[in-house]
Amino acid sequence: MPGPLHGIKVIDLTRVLAGPFCTMTLADLGAEIIKIEKPGTGDDSRAFGPHLHGESAYFMSINRGKKSLTLDLKAEKGREIFLKLVKDADVVVENFKPGVMKKLGLDYAALQKINPKLIYCASSGFGQTGPYSSRPAYDLIIQGMGGLMSITGPDASQPTKVGSSIADIFAGVFSAIGILSALYNRTHTGKGQMVDVAMLDCMVAILENAIARFTGSGIDPVPIGNRHPSIAPFTSVRTSDGYINIACGNDALWLKLCEIIERPDLATDKRYESNRSRCDHMPDLLPQLNEAMHKQSSAYWLKKLEEGHVPAGPINSISQVLSDPQVLARNMLLELAHPVAGLVKVPGSPVKLSDTPAEVKAPAPVLGQHNDEILASLGYSVQQIEGFRAEAVI
Amino acid sequence: MPGPLHGIKVIDLTRVLAGPFCTMTLADLGAEIIKIEKPGTGDDSRAFGPHLHGESAYFMSINRGKKSLTLDLKAEKGREIFLKLVKDADVVVENFKPGVMKKLGLDYAALQKINPKLIYCASSGFGQTGPYSSRPAYDLIIQGMGGLMSITGPDASQPTKVGSSIADIFAGVFSAIGILSALYNRTHTGKGQMVDVAMLDCMVAILENAIARFTGSGIDPVPIGNRHPSIAPFTSVRTSDGYINIACGNDALWLKLCEIIERPDLATDKRYESNRSRCDHMPDLLPQLNEAMHKQSSAYWLKKLEEGHVPAGPINSISQVLSDPQVLARNMLLELAHPVAGLVKVPGSPVKLSDTPAEVKAPAPVLGQHNDEILASLGYSVQQIEGFRAEAVI
Repeated sequence: MPGPLHGIKVIDLTRVLAGPFCTMTLADLGAEIIKIEKPGTGDDSRAFGPHLHGESAYFMSINRGKKSLTLDLKAEKGREIFLKLVKDADVVVENFKPGVMKKLGLDYAALQKINPKLIYCASSGFGQTGPYSSRPAYDLIIQGMGGLMSITGPDASQPTKVGSSIADIFAGVFSAIGILSALYNRTHTGKGQMVDVAMLDCMVAILENAIARFTGSGIDPVPIGNRHPSIAPFTSVRTSDGYINIACGNDALWLKLCEIIERPDLATDKRYESNRSRCDHMPDLLPQLNEAMHKQSSAYWLKKLEEGHVPAGPINSISQVLSDPQVLARNMLLELAHPVAGLVKVPGSPVKLSDTPAEVKAPAPVLGQHNDEILASLGYSVQQIEGFRAEAVI
Repeated sequence: MPGPLHGIKVIDLTRVLAGPFCTMTLADLGAEIIKIEKPGTGDDSRAFGPHLHGESAYFMSINRGKKSLTLDLKAEKGREIFLKLVKDADVVVENFKPGVMKKLGLDYAALQKINPKLIYCASSGFGQTGPYSSRPAYDLIIQGMGGLMSITGPDASQPTKVGSSIADIFAGVFSAIGILSALYNRTHTGKGQMVDVAMLDCMVAILENAIARFTGSGIDPVPIGNRHPSIAPFTSVRTSDGYINIACGNDALWLKLCEIIERPDLATDKRYESNRSRCDHMPDLLPQLNEAMHKQSSAYWLKKLEEGHVPAGPINSISQVLSDPQVLARNMLLELAHPVAGLVKVPGSPVKLSDTPAEVKAPAPVLGQHNDEILASLGYSVQQIEGFRAEAVI
């Protein structure tokens, strides 16, 4: 069964993470992705370690299911090939710094003229407009500027970056949302349009209750560790071999927790009798929970808490996630047979569709793997393709 | 200009965050959202503080642009009204625990029979299948189980939760992606389908280089603070009044940094001569950067670094984000006039479309605000609507 985007052709100029995450999402949903890479070196992330038999594990994880065409967009023949591809495409995605595509004469205004049905998505750090538009952007810089670091961390003195590149990834998924809604709209209007997604905008969009807390109180929220601002105990607790998370959403669960950890004194302590008072007294309550739960292992407590129906969960390491029965049952870990690297593990698609399921069809391409196939489909002869190769156009 | 989803009708049974974030995204893109709430109390998040004139700032921020219909789905007349709505709808979204809708006789199998074009999206903690499917889920629990906490934090001893509810929010955006791709697919097939999105799956999908690093090395990644695993210095540095982020992606930028912070000794130190050696020696390099930059304020360094073209940025608090010129220029902060709460600030949509722009059309509804309008449109008379009210069906 082909995916929901079967028949959609995407010309993909993206590099590293934000753009490639977007086109990976579209690939999983069935679109054909023609990834255009710089001849010789390709996507910068092909150089990012660790490498398996010379192929970047990082590159392979976010470029599965795409085709690779090397193309020098600055060469006249390279431009010509690109424009032929665009003429017949549904979507172009790029994540260059704003202005680069215009300099190449390949911005939306130019491409729209040769293909009015084209949807053109530009993903960038700050967006195509505004005073910072032309600045370079990195995930760390954007996480800091966007406010997320100011509310993440053990305490107010340690603003903390999220461990994965969340600013890039959100730009990728919101780009996919923009492209999909423009594709849907095109079925009525017959016309394409431009989608402009900024990493910084995405960070603002996901601040969640932090904006509400600030506008309600006028006080800037700060990192408060792993606890909930208004429910307690709803936090990480130390055990003899690590940490677990517990989530007591009401008084009954709190009393049950006191029973399980054999601390009846806490259950009758006036300071902890209501959710409100437990929130207020978390600074003295948390050390007592840590002390009580430090006596046994995470596995011990998780079993006890599950039996007592107190919501709890482990803080899994990556290897534990990758062997978790639920993760495996949901097909969230795939093994792809890569022609050079061998078996490669990549995460599956989290979009589970009943009739046209998302599917990872192929491993990531080696650089220029689909040059001959794609150029032949555009009508170029074997001799012409050899010529492009000799001139380093591809 | 109407949004790209103009004409799409969504029946929204969602509560709290993951589901409401999904339908907010669809609302911003122009869909009509009929939010069905429990008579009397409504969405649980209406009770979450802080409140402005009695209306929850939290609820208002993620329910803008929706209509509210109160409906008791357990009452026979409530079910009848719901089924009337579904008959004419494009999408149903719910984020109940798996099994709840089946118990109500309102699962996809049942609704599909009365409307084969319906797209039914279920967003849950663990998904509709697999051994943990029926477990309750909270953002904290899922961030821990999904591995993100194991790679976030100042160091290996402090696994850290992301400050916003990223597991819920990712489930919301991937649900939107599933719905949009199913809507597009329906334009060919005329048929709807089911979308099943799990918070845990979403966490696995965004682990990014952590999976690649683990599968490449066999070693579980741990939190490494704010620094980059393989580029240095690419980290937060302490100043006299806070922290800033710096991102030196190559040797030239590193040498420029040494000049700006007036530490020529670091530039000639053998330990820091290449990116590789700087990564290896970050434990002794970072304290020296902190020491040098602690002598001046964040604003001082940001100006100097910008002049020297060294990528850098502030760690903004929420109030700083909300007054940032770029954020304002991108319309990422909107003020909505709420009938009860007055002016309410909410983030804008990060999906910027050129022809059919996303747009926030209205503030969040008060509970049951659209009861009369929606029920009248289904053909119920004023008397019947009064009857529903008297019987607490609405």
